[in-house]
Amino acid sequence: MTYPISFVSLGPGEPELITVKGLRQLQTADIIYCPATRNRQGESISRAADIVRALEISETAIRCFMLPMSKDRTEAWKAYDALYNEAESNYAEGKQIVIVAEGDAGFYSSIQYIYDKFTAAGIAVQRIAGIPAFIAAGALAGLHIVKQEEQIVVIPGTPSADELSEKINAGYVIVIMKLSQCVEAVHECIRKHPQTQFHYFENVGTEKEYYTSDKKIIADKIYPYFSLMIIQ
Amino acid sequence: MTYPISFVSLGPGEPELITVKGLRQLQTADIIYCPATRNRQGESISRAADIVRALEISETAIRCFMLPMSKDRTEAWKAYDALYNEAESNYAEGKQIVIVAEGDAGFYSSIQYIYDKFTAAGIAVQRIAGIPAFIAAGALAGLHIVKQEEQIVVIPGTPSADELSEKINAGYVIVIMKLSQCVEAVHECIRKHPQTQFHYFENVGTEKEYYTSDKKIIADKIYPYFSLMIIQ
Repeated sequence: MTYPISFVSLGPGEPELITVKGLRQLQTADIIYCPATRNRQGESISRAADIVRALEISETAIRCFMLPMSKDRTEAWKAYDALYNEAESNYAEGKQIVIVAEGDAGFYSSIQYIYDKFTAAGIAVQRIAGIPAFIAAGALAGLHIVKQEEQIVVIPGTPSADELSEKINAGYVIVIMKLSQCVEAVHECIRKHPQTQFHYFENVGTEKEYYTSDKKIIADKIYPYFSLMIIQ
Repeated sequence: MTYPISFVSLGPGEPELITVKGLRQLQTADIIYCPATRNRQGESISRAADIVRALEISETAIRCFMLPMSKDRTEAWKAYDALYNEAESNYAEGKQIVIVAEGDAGFYSSIQYIYDKFTAAGIAVQRIAGIPAFIAAGALAGLHIVKQEEQIVVIPGTPSADELSEKINAGYVIVIMKLSQCVEAVHECIRKHPQTQFHYFENVGTEKEYYTSDKKIIADKIYPYFSLMIIQ
């Protein structure tokens, strides 16, 4: 007897924002693979494993795998290949395997690379949806993120000020992820678009979560890695 | 003692795709307000109430309210005002009140109008995020919805073929909701963009859910109300 490999989306970080369906998968899993990175001191840290632990899942099921963070994806792919091989051999032994991802596993998540490898090998997989960070951010601030005939565009951190300005002028609601990569562009747009609302979020779904729409504060802030913005 | 009014997002329709946090709110609620509409035979139907029932929540807590579906929002606003007044008076009596929405309550959901009324009246509210339909659709089909530096735009059903074509050429990943409102535009784009993938979904999260990326089938289909498309 084999079980499909289950890809469970953990949501934005607050443990209870996982779905009931996702939690059930974690509770019955033999092995839960959690992506981890190394901090500057060389210690392994895994936000994903912390979420799983907070859901009172047995520690013995958790296995962290190192995921190198770099624009060059070569090292990440090696890590995914190694994980694939290990998971595949445990799958063949009849173990119930879960691989987790923060946010949603199909929305800017490279974990999908492993999913595709299993699919290509003819091994049954299932994916369980999760809450993207921008949806949790909207709930935190009580924003009507997007309504009626409005269109929303999600941008992963690389827009120039001109590109952003163009999208604001075109009437889009805009979500910027990885905000720390486009600080200057955001500052310029705040000056250029006094009628527009800028909603700034950091560490949504964690104890350090923070929200402001005060333009002066936003202009003076240093944006950490887990920051995003909703422009309306 | 009063409890904040809780706005709980139910997700795309599959009951277990609610969050653990949302479920907990439903389980402790005294009253759960569920939007309902009338079908052609004049019967009240509520997908939201069906989801709540499937989660084994006590029937006595469920109260449906009629929500007129029409482009002219006047009637809907009257219904929201009536619901606000009723909920407010139950809130003042110390009842734990939940108001539910399908999908996410801040993502193309007009339930936010009631949330804003409570906020304006200085009454404590909280909103609990849910899975938008397009995220659940991606999970169903195993799609890498959007990756790396890609940008995604969500359009609620009104694009012309030219507008769609322009966005495809600009390299956006595109989500079209309310697909039944732009059938011809979609057909034209399928003919014009042979290199592009069109992923068609209907009734995601229900027993009738259906997915295909076969262009011939998509071109011949009649799109029901709950259909959406992801273009990559």
